[in-house]
Amino acid sequence: MATPFSMGWVLITEGKEKRLDPDDNLFEVTFDGYQLFPMHEHLEVRRHLKSDQIGTANIEQLTLKDGRTICHYRLVSLYSVN
Amino acid sequence: MATPFSMGWVLITEGKEKRLDPDDNLFEVTFDGYQLFPMHEHLEVRRHLKSDQIGTANIEQLTLKDGRTICHYRLVSLYSVN
Amino acid sequence: MATPFSMGWVLITEGKEKRLDPDDNLFEVTFDGYQLFPMHEHLEVRRHLKSDQIGTANIEQLTLKDGRTICHYRLVSLYSVN
Amino acid sequence: MATPFSMGWVLITEGKEKRLDPDDNLFEVTFDGYQLFPMHEHLEVRRHLKSDQIGTANIEQLTLKDGRTICHYRLVSLYSVN
Repeated sequence: MATPFSMGWVLITEGKEKRLDPDDNLFEVTFDGYQLFPMHEHLEVRRHLKSDQIGTANIEQLTLKDGRTICHYRLVSLYSVN
Repeated sequence: MATPFSMGWVLITEGKEKRLDPDDNLFEVTFDGYQLFPMHEHLEVRRHLKSDQIGTANIEQLTLKDGRTICHYRLVSLYSVN
Repeated sequence: MATPFSMGWVLITEGKEKRLDPDDNLFEVTFDGYQLFPMHEHLEVRRHLKSDQIGTANIEQLTLKDGRTICHYRLVSLYSVN
Repeated sequence: MATPFSMGWVLITEGKEKRLDPDDNLFEVTFDGYQLFPMHEHLEVRRHLKSDQIGTANIEQLTLKDGRTICHYRLVSLYSVN
């Protein structure tokens, strides 16, 4: 009788993010399990666990449902890789 | 640099719940702050902190957003008060 | 990069509790993983997940360490089974 | 009926840390409230919320008790300020 939650502090997208609006920097990514993050704070964004930081984002919304977490985050800076 | 979450285990509606569909037992209630509950478990439902149990519900969805928590719960039993 | 925590609301001892002091109702039980509970609230105590309630306890201390949780709880009532 | 927990991801000592052993890099600091952190992960350490990083530490133990959190952390690197 316990509900598992994971507490993360780096946003790892695995390249599965979707832009919610072409004119806006708001993205959605879904995680397995119930995942909590600091809200409305600058978090590091990476594509994979072991890859470099690709940007900084604020999490604006977390929806816990059906054993998954739908995360809406706003990209506040993007690291250029040119 | 810390995000507060509260962990609840009794659903206290303060009479603010809304039925989401007239044919279904799914309700929505919004809480101030980021509020976590056991998911998909039978929880006690009360109207107020100090009032009696009015039923039992399963929480199906929690959305954390703008400093509030939108909770969708399914009433699985209702205590008759006749 | 996420730390798992489980959120419980029933204390299931599996019979592994130890009384910390013979003159006191304070007990210790250790759980695998990092386990959170409501603090200083009346919680149901059971011996096993599917067994009946054996009493009521308040959790006074939780220590998260080495992938385990050491829980100190005070038994506030015990159900007689005579 | 809810227990508040705060989720932190930067260790802010306010200069209140105590070294637990003169031969070891293990420190103790106490926080008000129940404070959770990522466990056994490299976290940034600062003296104050707005000050610079002074080092990196792993949290090895968190004890939640009497409305406070006693945190044991091991300093894994220290930034020289000469």
